[in-house]
Amino acid sequence: MAKIEQIAQCNVAIAAHQYPIVVTRYGLEQAVWLQSHVSGKQVLIVSNQTIAPLYLTMVQESLAAYQCNTVILPDGEQYKNQHSLNVIYDALIEHKHHRDSTIVALGGGVIGDIAGFAAATYQRGVGLVQIPTTLLAQIDASIGGKTAINHPLGKNLIGSFYQPQAVLIDVNTLSTLPAREFKAGLGEMIKYGLLMGGSFLTTLHEALLQGLNLQSPQLANLIVSCCQYKASLVAADERETGQRALLNLGHTFAHALETITNYQVWLHGEAVAIGLYCAAVLSKQLGLIDKQQVQLVEELIRLAGLPYTIPKTIDLQQLKTLMQLDKKIKDNCLRFIVFNKPGDCFIHDKVTQDILDKTLVNVVEGD
Amino acid sequence: MAKIEQIAQCNVAIAAHQYPIVVTRYGLEQAVWLQSHVSGKQVLIVSNQTIAPLYLTMVQESLAAYQCNTVILPDGEQYKNQHSLNVIYDALIEHKHHRDSTIVALGGGVIGDIAGFAAATYQRGVGLVQIPTTLLAQIDASIGGKTAINHPLGKNLIGSFYQPQAVLIDVNTLSTLPAREFKAGLGEMIKYGLLMGGSFLTTLHEALLQGLNLQSPQLANLIVSCCQYKASLVAADERETGQRALLNLGHTFAHALETITNYQVWLHGEAVAIGLYCAAVLSKQLGLIDKQQVQLVEELIRLAGLPYTIPKTIDLQQLKTLMQLDKKIKDNCLRFIVFNKPGDCFIHDKVTQDILDKTLVNVVEGD
Repeated sequence: MAKIEQIAQCNVAIAAHQYPIVVTRYGLEQAVWLQSHVSGKQVLIVSNQTIAPLYLTMVQESLAAYQCNTVILPDGEQYKNQHSLNVIYDALIEHKHHRDSTIVALGGGVIGDIAGFAAATYQRGVGLVQIPTTLLAQIDASIGGKTAINHPLGKNLIGSFYQPQAVLIDVNTLSTLPAREFKAGLGEMIKYGLLMGGSFLTTLHEALLQGLNLQSPQLANLIVSCCQYKASLVAADERETGQRALLNLGHTFAHALETITNYQVWLHGEAVAIGLYCAAVLSKQLGLIDKQQVQLVEELIRLAGLPYTIPKTIDLQQLKTLMQLDKKIKDNCLRFIVFNKPGDCFIHDKVTQDILDKTLVNVVEGD
Repeated sequence: MAKIEQIAQCNVAIAAHQYPIVVTRYGLEQAVWLQSHVSGKQVLIVSNQTIAPLYLTMVQESLAAYQCNTVILPDGEQYKNQHSLNVIYDALIEHKHHRDSTIVALGGGVIGDIAGFAAATYQRGVGLVQIPTTLLAQIDASIGGKTAINHPLGKNLIGSFYQPQAVLIDVNTLSTLPAREFKAGLGEMIKYGLLMGGSFLTTLHEALLQGLNLQSPQLANLIVSCCQYKASLVAADERETGQRALLNLGHTFAHALETITNYQVWLHGEAVAIGLYCAAVLSKQLGLIDKQQVQLVEELIRLAGLPYTIPKTIDLQQLKTLMQLDKKIKDNCLRFIVFNKPGDCFIHDKVTQDILDKTLVNVVEGD
């Protein structure tokens, strides 16, 4: 066998980049707010049948000076698929959108994910501005550049990391959000509470005790804190090779619960709430936390009006099989985010089948 | 209208990253060469029916310690489509590939593009190692992170920028490359000659006069120079917002020629050769260069045994329509890369229809 004869080696260095998250009230009513983040002269607004009647005209008026086209998708996680993606591609091609075009994602997490993936992959990437209109999208889905569509065999199996030019949050858009969706967003906010602990958790706990809602004086600042926390994790670890994975607290359970019910039973934030309780019970099974801390998690979820148990109708064996497909698997070991206490979470990659079984049995709803 | 009440703004800063291009002889024969660039324990090799019989066993032997699966696609640009992409996704899902998996692209530019796009989008991005086996892929397609599939309405319309972990070039693999494909690769090498000018162009010109082939002593260093030049442009401008666009010299013409003939008439490098001559004639039409410089371009292309005229059978009107869809359009102006002289190319974004018509007429083959 011949010895390798190295002729040359050179390195390709890719530069860093950054973008802003802007949190306002009344931002959407001012054309300049959006315009200042749209480069080029072509815009495709992607929204859904629920959000478009509420905010589309406002956004279109802001973009009167642009070639502005629109794709309105049906509302729901089940439409986050290859077909909807092709509808967006076709609109971009039909209206001759070029590489300097910008896609504006107007809606919740589903719209942000699919419009983001279209922006990531049309002509190798066009501009993207996220205007999240749900609590869940404002504090989580719109930040960090995760884009995806679902595959028949699993959630978010096809996607990419693609950072927007800006995330524009107008807290006022939450006024049109159905109560159930607002509560679902609180599921992710409780996740941040467990991740951050400290004064954020204290503020959130108090706000929940007072019945956290749209009029709550704490709401805007709670949203800002979530954005800042997520931005800091994403900045340190865009591709989730390390600390960013903490944001998946509760999500291995949640994704499997959503898949097993074909996304028909729970909103994502509701599944996350159950997943957070699973993570707490798992942490207790691992001897990391005591009963009192599990009860705190239960209390936070209950106060938010969210579910925390797995219905008896769920096949636990099938649920476990679905977890094997989860992206958080590394070298074939099941990995979970667990915690020593709120504010002190970490990745545990040696959870045995036995511990997992005991956890799930303890989370199934009682008689 | 309410005044915007800005609550907060934070920035998300994404870190820089880099990867090596390694040029060798005999690299493929040594398992350690590939192993040192594969993280994780799962590998999917993507290759085609032409390359697999030649090099697949060698690569598999290097990866004996990994879970190693294989997808063999039919050979040809017409298979760089959504269907082939789904074949790769299905193999990844079927064999339970996780996020720490690595896709090894073993083949020419088509394999690199489609395997790269699969790597970019499976589970939001898995590892990617490019092992280009054609001259064209070694000096161009494998470097810079451009990945894509074709859409029925245009080449590379769906894709992304996704950088590999490494580009591993073994010049010896060119020994099995058909003569026509080697010559096609010279089309891109002549492009680098026009972009770089200077001593590279002099060396290339001399080598072509001597009948540049696999045994030519200049070949390895010419390849290294192309890689280094491309790496420098990519590093400065990953997403082709500026100088990287120079690499598209001749390509607006070439892509339209490939599309109009449904990729059946020319190899990419052959279409590029015609495109380079078009760019030279266009530069002359714009008064930038004289007849002598057009003749130099013609001579380089002729020496490489490549075509430089557009056949009479091509509908020039349809060709122009296809160019409108080209990704290099900015704000609806047709942009072309032109040159003042070899080594001094620039982006011209005010080419009129009239100048373009005169250019095309001058490039159509004579009687």
